[in-house]
Amino acid sequence: MSQQASELFDNFQELTPSEFFRKNKQMLGFTGKIRSLTIVFHELITNSFDAAEEAGILPEIEIALKRVDKDHYVLRHSDNGPGIPESYIMKVYCTMFAGSKFRNIQSRGQQGLGCSGCVLLSQMTTGEPARVKSAWEEDGEFKGTDLEFKMDVKKNKGMLLKRRKYEPQNTGVCIELDFKDVSYSLAEQGAFEYIRRTMIGNPHAKITFRDPTGHKYIFNRAADVVPILPKEVLPHPRDITADDLIFMAKHTNKRRFRSLLTSSLSRMSNKRLNEIEEISGIDLNKRPKNMKWEEVESIADAFSKMEFMAPPTSGLIPIGDKQIEDGMKEILEPEFISTTTRKPVTYRGGIAFIIEASIAYGGKAGRLVNDQKKSEVMRFANRVPLTFDQGSCAITEALKSIDWKRYGLKDLDNVPLTIFVNMISTQVPYLSTGKQSIAPEPEIIHEVRQATMKVARKLQKHLKAKKTAKEEALRSKIFEKYVPVIIREAAILAETEVPEFQDVLAKVTRRSLADLLGEKTQNKENIVDSENSEEELKEELDNNVKDINEDNIKDNIDDDAEDEVNIEDNIEDNSENIDDSVEKGTKRKDTQQTFEDLG
Amino acid sequence: MSQQASELFDNFQELTPSEFFRKNKQMLGFTGKIRSLTIVFHELITNSFDAAEEAGILPEIEIALKRVDKDHYVLRHSDNGPGIPESYIMKVYCTMFAGSKFRNIQSRGQQGLGCSGCVLLSQMTTGEPARVKSAWEEDGEFKGTDLEFKMDVKKNKGMLLKRRKYEPQNTGVCIELDFKDVSYSLAEQGAFEYIRRTMIGNPHAKITFRDPTGHKYIFNRAADVVPILPKEVLPHPRDITADDLIFMAKHTNKRRFRSLLTSSLSRMSNKRLNEIEEISGIDLNKRPKNMKWEEVESIADAFSKMEFMAPPTSGLIPIGDKQIEDGMKEILEPEFISTTTRKPVTYRGGIAFIIEASIAYGGKAGRLVNDQKKSEVMRFANRVPLTFDQGSCAITEALKSIDWKRYGLKDLDNVPLTIFVNMISTQVPYLSTGKQSIAPEPEIIHEVRQATMKVARKLQKHLKAKKTAKEEALRSKIFEKYVPVIIREAAILAETEVPEFQDVLAKVTRRSLADLLGEKTQNKENIVDSENSEEELKEELDNNVKDINEDNIKDNIDDDAEDEVNIEDNIEDNSENIDDSVEKGTKRKDTQQTFEDLG
Repeated sequence: MSQQASELFDNFQELTPSEFFRKNKQMLGFTGKIRSLTIVFHELITNSFDAAEEAGILPEIEIALKRVDKDHYVLRHSDNGPGIPESYIMKVYCTMFAGSKFRNIQSRGQQGLGCSGCVLLSQMTTGEPARVKSAWEEDGEFKGTDLEFKMDVKKNKGMLLKRRKYEPQNTGVCIELDFKDVSYSLAEQGAFEYIRRTMIGNPHAKITFRDPTGHKYIFNRAADVVPILPKEVLPHPRDITADDLIFMAKHTNKRRFRSLLTSSLSRMSNKRLNEIEEISGIDLNKRPKNMKWEEVESIADAFSKMEFMAPPTSGLIPIGDKQIEDGMKEILEPEFISTTTRKPVTYRGGIAFIIEASIAYGGKAGRLVNDQKKSEVMRFANRVPLTFDQGSCAITEALKSIDWKRYGLKDLDNVPLTIFVNMISTQVPYLSTGKQSIAPEPEIIHEVRQATMKVARKLQKHLKAKKTAKEEALRSKIFEKYVPVIIREAAILAETEVPEFQDVLAKVTRRSLADLLGEKTQNKENIVDSENSEEELKEELDNNVKDINEDNIKDNIDDDAEDEVNIEDNIEDNSENIDDSVEKGTKRKDTQQTFEDLG
Repeated sequence: MSQQASELFDNFQELTPSEFFRKNKQMLGFTGKIRSLTIVFHELITNSFDAAEEAGILPEIEIALKRVDKDHYVLRHSDNGPGIPESYIMKVYCTMFAGSKFRNIQSRGQQGLGCSGCVLLSQMTTGEPARVKSAWEEDGEFKGTDLEFKMDVKKNKGMLLKRRKYEPQNTGVCIELDFKDVSYSLAEQGAFEYIRRTMIGNPHAKITFRDPTGHKYIFNRAADVVPILPKEVLPHPRDITADDLIFMAKHTNKRRFRSLLTSSLSRMSNKRLNEIEEISGIDLNKRPKNMKWEEVESIADAFSKMEFMAPPTSGLIPIGDKQIEDGMKEILEPEFISTTTRKPVTYRGGIAFIIEASIAYGGKAGRLVNDQKKSEVMRFANRVPLTFDQGSCAITEALKSIDWKRYGLKDLDNVPLTIFVNMISTQVPYLSTGKQSIAPEPEIIHEVRQATMKVARKLQKHLKAKKTAKEEALRSKIFEKYVPVIIREAAILAETEVPEFQDVLAKVTRRSLADLLGEKTQNKENIVDSENSEEELKEELDNNVKDINEDNIKDNIDDDAEDEVNIEDNIEDNSENIDDSVEKGTKRKDTQQTFEDLG
């Protein structure tokens, strides 16, 4: 009965990363037909953008998705990037955990799994090889190669099937992959929506997309500048563990630990080095290879006790308010938009990040569900749209914790509103290999809240002004309707002629309206030079402004003087709330599951 | 400005799995101090159980957690399993993606990441080596070795530091690891709670745990039988893709595709093979290596069109109603318990699974939060407690979709209730490497609902009987109180002696109560031979039974006759609801994020 240990180990195997993910493709985000295809778009677009920008090229991508059979598609994706030298092509597309992005630099990709994951999925569902044409510059010449290959999952390597040289006119990569068990959909959170959001986060890019029906969408550039290339920055001491120091010491060719520190970490000066020696009691002139764990641990411990300047932020390039608004306007044509970029701060002590938030209202903002406008949230990390797993994401948690009623949004669900939040960092703390949600670090949640509340306050002012203006318009209309009657009747009573009053009346009523709307309201024209009949306007008002009674309006106006103060108060209040809610959030995560979660 | 492709690839690197997870330890579930330690307990316990059972040994584990410093712990974990032969020890603990469990067998571990993940975390946080003592049987002799080693992450291999042979008296493994940046907590969803739940799912095991305060907990066996060892079953044709067939064809030594199929898949007979040839038009006598993708695709396609017997379920060993109840009673001492095991069914066409559900009420069921009893859900997969990421889990979704009010639980949150759900399968579809939640496959959700509703109905009957009994007890008490007075007064009026009536009265009132409670109520005794004073009883009734008016009770009793029918109706109704909600569930996953999620 009882088996011996040696027999139990007869089956012992070692898998390659490719074999592992072949068995666990859901860990690459490949679950469900629509999601799988969206993840493929995501990986290929992301890679093209990173490569083009690194080479200082304005990205331009052409995608064509053809339907060959029921759920069999052929995807052709070409870019104008710098190309991939032949010797790296199969490594990029067939070796998992391989890539050039394992650096402390702000880039869209981080894990060396994306492209090879797409090739794996293609091969697993169709057995077809990948076709890659790459053109690159080498010693001042354009070189081109056209390869056909499969992935050998047992070896985690490519297997070349065909190879042809060609003479290209420019650089770039074109990859063609077959997929089955995927599906393209406009309505759902699919590939098309992914491209739309990508354009908002990347207004400097151009994407042409031919969908399976043959329809060609051209997403033009809303901005013509290549984003400043983020620089690789040395890690901040606060982000360094004893294990990192040991790892660095083991793989360095520096002779002294001192020079290893200055060459590998940011914010290291002689003064700091002396301070480290003082606090830790470790001689930094020791050879790195001779450093013991206890010693590097004392050094890491000293880091945590010392005051360092914040990490350099030259490595962080936000999209920027203007670019975001250009992108949003191009796609959403909103009636109102407000955008803000926060100052760089850090999470986990030493990883710098920046939060950008924007709010767009009206126009094509929000999304149509059964002909009804609903609000929508667009989450981004380093300009890349995050489209799945929103539940556990820091951005979702932060937005959830905001009391939207304070900002005049009583029924947030049913508003033509798009909220955009982007996190920029050299190291986005993704929660899973699928890279669809950001870990709810307290500092990240705090920044998202602050940024969003700021733009929400701007929106609140706009909505308030708009309501007041509408109310005023109604009064003016009534005024305009009855004043002439009174004048006419008065003239009859006085037995005189009716005087010329129209121009004066119009000036009076409309000037006050214009004042109210201020300069920020973009649909001022619509309201002032209303083409609506009086009845229509009145009806609209009845429907929309029903809930504003005069008292409320007066209160609002009276409050305006105190507005700044109140807002400050709100900020104070909210900051406390955040800490509370963050605290609670973390606790709820760690406590046992109860029916609260099932309510 | 523009960089050439070749420069861009200067940094190209290939990571080993260990290097990858060193950079992404959150993907192994190591996030947060409490969670990290819980995951370590989980991986080590799981591994010991699997090994012991495979060798036909009743598992017995000793765990000691010592606190060395603020957040520095030393964990010592020993088992009585078959041990690990020396040549495999470092592979088990230092090579990621290596293991003996990549088979189609019901086992707790599946991925070859668990133990090596623990060693990685220990090394990353403390720099200390792992200490492993292993004793195993070889050629009828006990052999023992005592190793100290580190993990070389650059090579994904162990690095031996010390080695000592010893002569053991029995088999087993003892591992000692240091950890920092983790924390032990009783109150939160920590290591202690993990052990408690483990005991419920594994009543045949014994665990002794010495906590950091030195307190020793002994969790005794509630059952003395080693679970029947699940057999490895051949995969079912419905679960086989063209890619699987190509993979098998490439790595087989069979000469004919025909024999490859019969030796690798279940439910393959000559009749079936002929059917495959007929439907696909492929000659199965071909050599496996010569099979083209199109050909295996036609074969996989034929599989999906054919009628197969369900997969063999000899590979699935549920815990069993009695064992579950023994485990629950040992830990929860509930007033009421009901358990059910569903028949095996399949998801994704060909992967067999079984759902077991149990509901415990009263006693120590539920959990105490600020001295208040709350309900709790215990999710299991192959007997392993799932303690995190409940949000996206199939079990959570299924329980959420149940209308608990139908089962007499109006305020589900505040009830002394423990719901236990276990999924048994050769292939649990985990959503992430952290293995904490089950993918919400429609078939799994359906089965969890059915099982839970069945035990909920039993609970409903119990609660109904209990309320009626309490109501009746109150009436009896009143009866008992006033009848003597009436008798005494009547005697005085009639000028006779007071007759002996006590025994008769007691018989009458208490018999009707016993009838009401039936045989199923376990706290019958408490109610009948009530030691409570009349006042207490009345007060309790006032508090608890306030909402039962007589009409309700009558209705309930009248309904009893129709109960079976109603339940049938409910099942019908609910089945429809399920499909609806599953449908919706899936859709909501794929649709865009809105503020509904933030509500």
